[in-house]
Amino acid sequence: MSKVLVTGHKSPDTDSVSSAIVYAYLKNKQGFDAYPVRLGEVNKETAYALDYFNVEAPALADDEAKQDVEEVILVDHNERQQSIDDIENFKIIEVIDHHRIANFETRDPLYYRAEPVGCTATILLKLFRESHIDIPKDLAGLMLSAILSDSLLFKSPTCTDEDIKSALELANIAGVDTEAYGMEMLKAGADTSGKTIDELLTMDAKIFEVGNDQLEIAQVNTVDVADVLEKKQAITERMDEIIQEKQLSFFLLVITDILNNDSTIIAGGNENEKVERAFNVKLDDDTAVLKDVVSRKKQIAPVLVKEFS
Amino acid sequence: MSKVLVTGHKSPDTDSVSSAIVYAYLKNKQGFDAYPVRLGEVNKETAYALDYFNVEAPALADDEAKQDVEEVILVDHNERQQSIDDIENFKIIEVIDHHRIANFETRDPLYYRAEPVGCTATILLKLFRESHIDIPKDLAGLMLSAILSDSLLFKSPTCTDEDIKSALELANIAGVDTEAYGMEMLKAGADTSGKTIDELLTMDAKIFEVGNDQLEIAQVNTVDVADVLEKKQAITERMDEIIQEKQLSFFLLVITDILNNDSTIIAGGNENEKVERAFNVKLDDDTAVLKDVVSRKKQIAPVLVKEFS
Repeated sequence: MSKVLVTGHKSPDTDSVSSAIVYAYLKNKQGFDAYPVRLGEVNKETAYALDYFNVEAPALADDEAKQDVEEVILVDHNERQQSIDDIENFKIIEVIDHHRIANFETRDPLYYRAEPVGCTATILLKLFRESHIDIPKDLAGLMLSAILSDSLLFKSPTCTDEDIKSALELANIAGVDTEAYGMEMLKAGADTSGKTIDELLTMDAKIFEVGNDQLEIAQVNTVDVADVLEKKQAITERMDEIIQEKQLSFFLLVITDILNNDSTIIAGGNENEKVERAFNVKLDDDTAVLKDVVSRKKQIAPVLVKEFS
Repeated sequence: MSKVLVTGHKSPDTDSVSSAIVYAYLKNKQGFDAYPVRLGEVNKETAYALDYFNVEAPALADDEAKQDVEEVILVDHNERQQSIDDIENFKIIEVIDHHRIANFETRDPLYYRAEPVGCTATILLKLFRESHIDIPKDLAGLMLSAILSDSLLFKSPTCTDEDIKSALELANIAGVDTEAYGMEMLKAGADTSGKTIDELLTMDAKIFEVGNDQLEIAQVNTVDVADVLEKKQAITERMDEIIQEKQLSFFLLVITDILNNDSTIIAGGNENEKVERAFNVKLDDDTAVLKDVVSRKKQIAPVLVKEFS
C-alpha cells in the first residue's frame, strides 16, 4: 500500500498539528499507511501540548517525507496557498476542515468533510464515533488542546456548543482540568517577550486570495500587547518589505490579548481606507483596537475579503 | 425563519431531483424551512420514478421560488456553472455531493459533505441514519431510483459496495424489486425515438471548466444507438453551432447503450486529436465506440480534463 501524508496548513497551529497526528492515527486504524507531517516549525503553544501529553511532533514535510508519496489528506485547511508548496504533485483523497472553501480544486471525487464548527478536532471526534474506534488518552489531550487553542478557551465567536461539548468529553478521556490546563497552554503560546519581528509576523500567518489580490493576515496571541506595540516601527517596516517580496496587496497583523479578548491591529501597506471601512474604526498611525474581536476566520478575514472583492 | 432552497444541478437527472426532495425533507425535520427546486425540465426517467412513488416534482427555481431566499443548499453538484445562474446572490450553507470539487468558493465556513460514492442518495441515507430520522417509503423509492440511475443498475464503475448496500436497504423500505423496477425506470429514460436534436444534446449536459477552456459533455442513455446515430449529421451541425454560441472549446455527445454498457461518442468542434489521445481510440467521421464506458464522471470527464489541462 502506498504512503499517505496527513498535513495541516503552513505556519501550523495547535489544531493543524494535533489534527494531523490524530487523523493519521484514525486512518491507520482503518487500514491506511498514513503519516502526519507539518508545514513549518511547531509553535510554543503546540510544543507545550505535545510535551504535556508526551506525543512526538510530526516530521517536517520535506523531500524525505514526500518520497514515494502519491496521496495526501488535508486537515484544517483547503486553500492551495496555505498547503504543501507542490500540492499539485499529489492526489488529495480527503479533506477534513472547518474553514471556507476557496482556491481548491480536484480532478476526481474525494471525501470532503467540512463543518462550520470552531475546530477540526471537533469533527475528528465525530469521525472516531462514526468509525467506532476508541480515542487514546494522549490523543484526546491533543484534540482538547486544539479546541481550547482555536476557541481561546471557548471565548471566540467561532466556538459552537458542539466544540464545548466535545472539549468536555475529551478532557474527561484525557483526565485534565479544562480551564487550568487551557490557560497554561495559551500562556505558553502567548509569551511574546523574546520574539523577533519575523517570528511575530510568520508564527501564524495566512494568505487569502481575492481575485488577483493576495491579503496576508498574521495573528499573535499575547498577555502583553504593549510589549508588542513597542516594536511597531520595526514591524510596519518589515511588513512593507514582505508586501514587496511576496507581491501582496495588503498585510495585517492582529495582536490578540488572551486575557481581555480584544485585538489590536497594525495595517501594513496603503489600504488604510479599506481597513477603516471593513472594521468601522479610525486608524491612528496604522493602528486600532477592535473590541471583542479574536477570530481571524469569523471577524477579520470575511470583512476584509468583502472589502477587496 | 428564512426559506432555504435545496437544488441539484442544471439538466437535472434522477439523483439531482430526488436528492433535492429528500434532503429538503430531512432539513425540515431538523427545523429548517427548506424547499426543493430544480434547474430544468424533469426528464422521462425521473418522471417515471416520481410517478411510480407518487411524489410531486420540485418547483422550477424561478423568480417566484427565489423570492425572499437568502440561503441555498446544493446537492449532487458544486461547480458554479452547473448551479443556479445567480448563485452569487445566495449564501451556500451546505453541499452534499459525490463529484470532484472545482470552480467553487465560499466566503464563510459551511457544511460540506462529499464522499467518493456513486450517488448523492447514498450519502443522504447516512445522514438520515446519523440524525436518527426515519425515511418515508416514497422517499426511499426515490433514493433507490437515484442510485439505480447513477449506477446504471450497478453496472457503472462509479458504483461502490456502499451504493449497492444502500440500494438494497432502500428497496426493502420502498417495497420494490430492484432489478425489475430498475430496468423499467432506465428504459423509460432511454427511449430516444421521439427526441429532437436539441433534446438529445441538452437532456443531461454538463460544462467542465479547465483553465480558460469550457468543455461540454452531454450524455444520453438509449436502448437503440443506431436510432440516434441516424441523426449524426444534424447532431454534429448543431454541436458546432452550440460551440459558437457558448464559446466552448469542445462538445462531446456520449450515447450510452444501457443493454450492453458500451458508449458511442460523437465529437463536436476540432479537437479530434485530443479525443483520440484521451480515449486511445481512432475516430471515424467524428465517432468511436468506447467499450465498457458508461460513466461521464469517472471514465470520460477526467481524461478529457487532463488532456485539456
